[in-house]
Amino acid sequence: MKSRPSLAKAFKGRRALITGGLGFIGSNLARRLVKLGTKVTILDSLIPEYGGNRYNLHGIERKVSLNLSDVRDRHSLPEFLRGQDYLFNLAGQTSHMDSMSDPETDLEINCRSQLTLLEACRKHNPGIRIVFASTRQIYGRPDYLPVDEKHPLRPVDVNGINKLAGEEYHILYSQVHGIRSTVLRLTNTIGPRMRVKDARQTFVGVWIRDVLQEKPIDVWGGEQRRDFTYVDDAVEAMLMSAISPEAVGGVFNLGGVGQIGLRELAILLVEVAGQGSYRVKVFPAERKKIDIGDFYSDCRLIGSTLGWEPSTTIRQALTKTVAYYRKALPHYL
Amino acid sequence: MKSRPSLAKAFKGRRALITGGLGFIGSNLARRLVKLGTKVTILDSLIPEYGGNRYNLHGIERKVSLNLSDVRDRHSLPEFLRGQDYLFNLAGQTSHMDSMSDPETDLEINCRSQLTLLEACRKHNPGIRIVFASTRQIYGRPDYLPVDEKHPLRPVDVNGINKLAGEEYHILYSQVHGIRSTVLRLTNTIGPRMRVKDARQTFVGVWIRDVLQEKPIDVWGGEQRRDFTYVDDAVEAMLMSAISPEAVGGVFNLGGVGQIGLRELAILLVEVAGQGSYRVKVFPAERKKIDIGDFYSDCRLIGSTLGWEPSTTIRQALTKTVAYYRKALPHYL
Repeated sequence: MKSRPSLAKAFKGRRALITGGLGFIGSNLARRLVKLGTKVTILDSLIPEYGGNRYNLHGIERKVSLNLSDVRDRHSLPEFLRGQDYLFNLAGQTSHMDSMSDPETDLEINCRSQLTLLEACRKHNPGIRIVFASTRQIYGRPDYLPVDEKHPLRPVDVNGINKLAGEEYHILYSQVHGIRSTVLRLTNTIGPRMRVKDARQTFVGVWIRDVLQEKPIDVWGGEQRRDFTYVDDAVEAMLMSAISPEAVGGVFNLGGVGQIGLRELAILLVEVAGQGSYRVKVFPAERKKIDIGDFYSDCRLIGSTLGWEPSTTIRQALTKTVAYYRKALPHYL
Repeated sequence: MKSRPSLAKAFKGRRALITGGLGFIGSNLARRLVKLGTKVTILDSLIPEYGGNRYNLHGIERKVSLNLSDVRDRHSLPEFLRGQDYLFNLAGQTSHMDSMSDPETDLEINCRSQLTLLEACRKHNPGIRIVFASTRQIYGRPDYLPVDEKHPLRPVDVNGINKLAGEEYHILYSQVHGIRSTVLRLTNTIGPRMRVKDARQTFVGVWIRDVLQEKPIDVWGGEQRRDFTYVDDAVEAMLMSAISPEAVGGVFNLGGVGQIGLRELAILLVEVAGQGSYRVKVFPAERKKIDIGDFYSDCRLIGSTLGWEPSTTIRQALTKTVAYYRKALPHYL
C-alpha cells in the first residue's frame, strides 16, 4: 500500500507509542510507521497466551524502541507517554473463552488499565492523539445486517462488556477532558503476524496453520457469514484516524471487502494454499451460547468521514497470509 | 403500602442479602423485608462519602444481621452468599462528580466488585435470585422523551460507563451461567433516609435539608424536567422483580408519577414544607459538560411485564420526606 502524502507528512519525525506493539496488528502498524519515518515505542507484556511475538519485529528490531511492560503496570506509564504525539492503544485480552473463564483478568486489562492509561494521558500528556482498537464483539447478536454504528450494543461475553467500557472511557475523555481519541471497532482482522497457535485471536490463524501442516481444518458450524479486514487495511484506517480532526471523538466500524460463509472460506483457503482439507463440525453447546451467528459490518461511516475503505479482497488477504506463514510458520508455533 | 399476598408468601422465612443495606434505598428495602418476615443480612462499608447511615436501621437494628464490609473486599463474600435466597445488589458509588475526579475507585466498586460478586454467586450460590440497582445515568443525553429501554446507551460520565458494565455483567451471568438476575434502572429516587449532607446521592436531599434549615435552595438551571420515584415504590419494584420468573434476565426502567421542572419542584417543596425559599443559579461550565438536560423515563415495560407502576405523586413524596426529616434531620448532618 502506497502511503499518501498526508500520512507521510503527519508521521515523519513524530513519536508514536503502540501498546500491544508486538502483537498482530500492533506489529504491522509499527512496521508501517517505521517506513513513514516515525519514532516508534512499543509496549508489550509478551504474555504467552496473548498475541505478542518477538518475531513480529523481525527486520525492524533496531528501528523501534521495545519495552517489555504490561498495561496493567501503571507506574511506568507516565514516562512512556511523555513526548508522544500518538498513542495507538491496541493492548488487550482478545479471547472470548478466556474472558468467561477468567473474567477479572479481562476486566483488569480491557477495562481498568484503559482508565489508568487515560488518566495518565490527562495528567502527563493531554495533547496526545489516541486511536483505540475496539471490536465488533460489543454488538452481540445482530438485529440486522450489515451492522452499522447505530446498532444496539449487547455484548454476549465479558470481553465484549469490558471492551465496550474501554471505548466509552476513550470517548468520554475526548469529550470531557479533551484527550482526543478515536475508537475503531475492528471486525475479523487477518494477515501476516496473527496468532496461529490457537484460536485466541482468530480461528483463521488456526486454519492457516492446519492447512500448512496438512491437517484438516475444523469448521464449526460453517454457515455463519463474516467479513474480514486485511491487516494493512486496518493499519491504514488507524493512521488516517490519528491525523483526521473529523475523527476526534468518533466511533467507526471497520469492515472487509464483501463477506463469506465459513465453509466457503475454508474451501477458498484450501484452494489458495493448494493444499489441506476441511471438515464441518457441530458447535459444542458451551460455545453455541455465546455465538453470534452471521456478522458483517457496515463501514460506510468511516468511508464518508475519512475516506477509508477496505481494498484487499478475502482471496488476496488469504493469499498474502498463506505466503507469509509458508516461510514463517515455525516462529509462530 | 400494603404487601400483596404473593410478596408475603415469597419472602416470609426466606433469606435476603442487601449490599449497601445501610444506604437510602437499601435500608428502606430492609425495613420492608423485615415486615415481610424475611431474614435480612446487610453488607455496608459505611464509607462517609457514600449513603450508609446507621440511623437508617433505627428501630430494626435487632431484626437484621449487619456486617460492616465493603463489596471490594472479596474474601468474605462466599460466606455472606451461602444460603441466601435473594441478593439485592445495591452497593455502589453514586456520585457523578466523584467518578470524574476519582475514576478508578468508581471502577473498583461499580465494575470490578460486581464481577467478583457474580463470580462468587456462580461458585457458591448459583441458585440465588439477584436484583441489581442500575441508573438512568447510562442513557446519557436523551434523543427522545420519555426514555424507554430501547434508547441508545451513551453514558456521559465514568459512573455511567461503569454502572452499564455492572448491569451487563448481571445480564450476561443470567443468560450464560443461569444466575437469575434482574436489572432495574432507577431514575431520581427520593424519600426518607436519603443522603442530605451533600448532593452525592441526589440534589433533592440537599434541598430538603436547606428548606428545613431555612437556607435558600440553590436551583441550578431550573428548566430541566425530571421524574422522581418515591422510595417505597422503588422497593416494591425490587421485591416484585425478585419473585417474578418473567423478570429473569430483564432490564427495566423505573419511573415516577409525572415529571416536573426543577424550579417548579423547588416551589412545590417550599409550599409542602411551609418554609424556606429558593434562588436560581447558572450552571458552572464544568458541570454543564456532563449535564444531560431534560430526563424522564418510560416505565411501561415493567408495568406490562410485572404489573408495577409508581403510585406516589411528587407532592406526596415530598410531603412524606419532609415529615421524616423534620424529626430525623440531626441524624443525617
